[in-house]
Amino acid sequence: MAASPRITVWNEYRHELQDAHIGAIYPEGIHGAIAAGLREQGLTVRTATLDEPEHGLTEAVLDETDVLTWWGHKSHAEVDDAIVERVKQRVLNGMGLVVLHSGHFSKIFTSLMGTTCNLKWREGGDKERLWVVAPGHPITEGIGEYIELAEEEMYGEQFDIPAPDTLVFVSWFTGGEVFRSGCCYARGQGKVFYFRPGHETLPTYHNKEIQRVIANGCRWAAPIPNSATRNFGNRKPLEPLPARG
Amino acid sequence: MAASPRITVWNEYRHELQDAHIGAIYPEGIHGAIAAGLREQGLTVRTATLDEPEHGLTEAVLDETDVLTWWGHKSHAEVDDAIVERVKQRVLNGMGLVVLHSGHFSKIFTSLMGTTCNLKWREGGDKERLWVVAPGHPITEGIGEYIELAEEEMYGEQFDIPAPDTLVFVSWFTGGEVFRSGCCYARGQGKVFYFRPGHETLPTYHNKEIQRVIANGCRWAAPIPNSATRNFGNRKPLEPLPARG
Amino acid sequence: MAASPRITVWNEYRHELQDAHIGAIYPEGIHGAIAAGLREQGLTVRTATLDEPEHGLTEAVLDETDVLTWWGHKSHAEVDDAIVERVKQRVLNGMGLVVLHSGHFSKIFTSLMGTTCNLKWREGGDKERLWVVAPGHPITEGIGEYIELAEEEMYGEQFDIPAPDTLVFVSWFTGGEVFRSGCCYARGQGKVFYFRPGHETLPTYHNKEIQRVIANGCRWAAPIPNSATRNFGNRKPLEPLPARG
Amino acid sequence: MAASPRITVWNEYRHELQDAHIGAIYPEGIHGAIAAGLREQGLTVRTATLDEPEHGLTEAVLDETDVLTWWGHKSHAEVDDAIVERVKQRVLNGMGLVVLHSGHFSKIFTSLMGTTCNLKWREGGDKERLWVVAPGHPITEGIGEYIELAEEEMYGEQFDIPAPDTLVFVSWFTGGEVFRSGCCYARGQGKVFYFRPGHETLPTYHNKEIQRVIANGCRWAAPIPNSATRNFGNRKPLEPLPARG
Repeated sequence: MAASPRITVWNEYRHELQDAHIGAIYPEGIHGAIAAGLREQGLTVRTATLDEPEHGLTEAVLDETDVLTWWGHKSHAEVDDAIVERVKQRVLNGMGLVVLHSGHFSKIFTSLMGTTCNLKWREGGDKERLWVVAPGHPITEGIGEYIELAEEEMYGEQFDIPAPDTLVFVSWFTGGEVFRSGCCYARGQGKVFYFRPGHETLPTYHNKEIQRVIANGCRWAAPIPNSATRNFGNRKPLEPLPARG
Repeated sequence: MAASPRITVWNEYRHELQDAHIGAIYPEGIHGAIAAGLREQGLTVRTATLDEPEHGLTEAVLDETDVLTWWGHKSHAEVDDAIVERVKQRVLNGMGLVVLHSGHFSKIFTSLMGTTCNLKWREGGDKERLWVVAPGHPITEGIGEYIELAEEEMYGEQFDIPAPDTLVFVSWFTGGEVFRSGCCYARGQGKVFYFRPGHETLPTYHNKEIQRVIANGCRWAAPIPNSATRNFGNRKPLEPLPARG
Repeated sequence: MAASPRITVWNEYRHELQDAHIGAIYPEGIHGAIAAGLREQGLTVRTATLDEPEHGLTEAVLDETDVLTWWGHKSHAEVDDAIVERVKQRVLNGMGLVVLHSGHFSKIFTSLMGTTCNLKWREGGDKERLWVVAPGHPITEGIGEYIELAEEEMYGEQFDIPAPDTLVFVSWFTGGEVFRSGCCYARGQGKVFYFRPGHETLPTYHNKEIQRVIANGCRWAAPIPNSATRNFGNRKPLEPLPARG
Repeated sequence: MAASPRITVWNEYRHELQDAHIGAIYPEGIHGAIAAGLREQGLTVRTATLDEPEHGLTEAVLDETDVLTWWGHKSHAEVDDAIVERVKQRVLNGMGLVVLHSGHFSKIFTSLMGTTCNLKWREGGDKERLWVVAPGHPITEGIGEYIELAEEEMYGEQFDIPAPDTLVFVSWFTGGEVFRSGCCYARGQGKVFYFRPGHETLPTYHNKEIQRVIANGCRWAAPIPNSATRNFGNRKPLEPLPARG
């Protein structure tokens, strides 16, 4: 994998500007907190947000992006379909994608999954404990048996996703629910990691273990250099075919 | 599963009307041949085609459909997006879907897979041998170690699909290629089976083993009665949450 | 699948005879309670126990067994290796296996899994809620979104098993743990279902939903009739090989 | 992952000493050829063989081994069960294992798989073409769409293994068979990669692409540093349980 994958941290960046409480938790935006955490982990990071031209995801930016992280919540519908399609083709051609929390309902994630990605949810009062169920997976590097978050929004099953290629974390919530919280997928030549925590009203992205998992996810999702260009279409035989009558 | 699942066999039904050679192979249409094979296997079958109103896939028809089979080729783009969405929601809510051959590029299949579903192909001169790699799977009932087709269109890897939940068949072709020919997926409460053979210029759907696999696929994909309605959205806790300060 | 699969319910049958409290919960033995539940579900059932000759698993009994269910706990080591090997070969050749609760440590399960199948556990005071994460799977037929058990022994991750082919249930426990509670595997031509609940000091096997899941598991694991005999070893080519110099 | 994983290349090392033809192809032994290839790829390599004390796999050697590669063929039965168990525990605790060709029948591989690992085979005259079906997987780094081997022993389906967690290569053979040739598994904290080619009478391990795949497999299978120690057994609750009456 690339020695230091180049990460673009994408954020809707509306809650922080419109709600003083959220703005106080994330004064540099959710993207700022995520980017700071990834930089501490040694990754090369830039950010992009919804209200930039082309949502900050120009071809030039994507040319220099190995892995894209995605946080969105209330404005999924405002993401331009053409940009979604652009990102999707990049993923299928090898760019990694790390989808965070409420990004489960983003156009890019639902389009790559083929399902609604719907779930149960509840704000307020739940503790979350994310249990590792795939020990030895690179995304768990440096993480103990579980990560505990004193408060998080609850997401509960049934989570309407395809069965993950690898299930890495399963969450426990105080209120009685469970959730598949860390899910790995291959799509085309690209890799997709969905990671559950990160509600905008809580300081989750300042948590060092959460930052570590996101960094691990970016490293895991980084493209493999020199892997084969995918060839499709009409092809000559590689072995002789019988003569036809 | 339902004692006798009700199958709707969908066909684009253009090649057979426009090309005399193909029409001679499938005088009742490809759908007619598939339907006849399924009826011999004891299934309850109706058909629907592209040029019927709503492509023959009205809500009333889908209300009486446990499993939909899909054959299309050159007119995928003419399938109305609203009908595709209607079918997709049915699948996610439990209706089975069996996608055949060139249906790999249909809107419904690519939408449920989230990838391009592209592949290599070649017409003329290849033998195909479909090897069972999941013995004991219900879709292999009554099938030996492999199915041999004297001539078929070649489809070759890389096949741009998500890794199947279960890989049932792998094909060998004379010209040197292999292909994942029988692929099972769960999507929402529904099940999807992709089965490769069935080029329009060849009598593949008159083959008894191919008919058997399609029938098995329909039985496997049939909805499970009395399974839970999926509930999403904001939920009260099932266990007491701590009082908040 | 067989119209009515023939089930053999195997039980260690020691706790019930040695501990009056347990004997009072299961006066006909744990096997008796499981068998009664399966008969109510319309299955054909016999039982077998550790202290019978050949543990009740003679070749003649296995000849008439489509699916074997397994409950053991404190006497795994007393199960004869030759009988374990006999059962294993049957599974690889198509017999279904449903492994219950503390059967996770049985010789037959660990041998088929290839891992230690170790886990965390705690007796006393936990509620268990088994959430369906694979809606539409035949093992969930007739089951709602979750099954709640007022008290059960806790089993917690990390559960040292291979990733299931299909994960059907995930459990929540009061004390803060989660567990992959319903796990499907294919092994050879056989199918294996591990289902977590069923501690000997609790009336779990009298619960109608638990009985339903075990019955569903037996139907799912039943062998497919007329599926191909597996052929191995030295084989002649199916296509001409080039002449050798 | 470790900057440079330390590899131990294990070989039965009998054919090369007993058969002049084979000895001429592998004058330094099959292990010598594999080790040379891995060193060219920048890995740290030692070797071990069957006839060394403890088969060369002492605790001290395994303490310094991140990944073990395994080639054996006619003397699987001579591998001491205690050494197999020692290696198995190492794998479950994180050591990588790369199993090559006829190693499919080794005690260590069959023990980790839980199946017979039987297959079809034929010597003489087949070309093999290994197609990549998981583009983007780290094991395919630097490999094109397929690897072609002018001659190899044929291995054909049905290959009696659990469905791989990830299927990376599928082979085509001249004589009409296919085979799942590159198979990834997680077992405990360890990773296992089975890679098919490598018959003793052919110079396969001198092939640069084959060497590359084995090196990639070793890097993929290397243990993750600082991952959680697995804890099992009786556990106190992490959350308060209700008082018991």
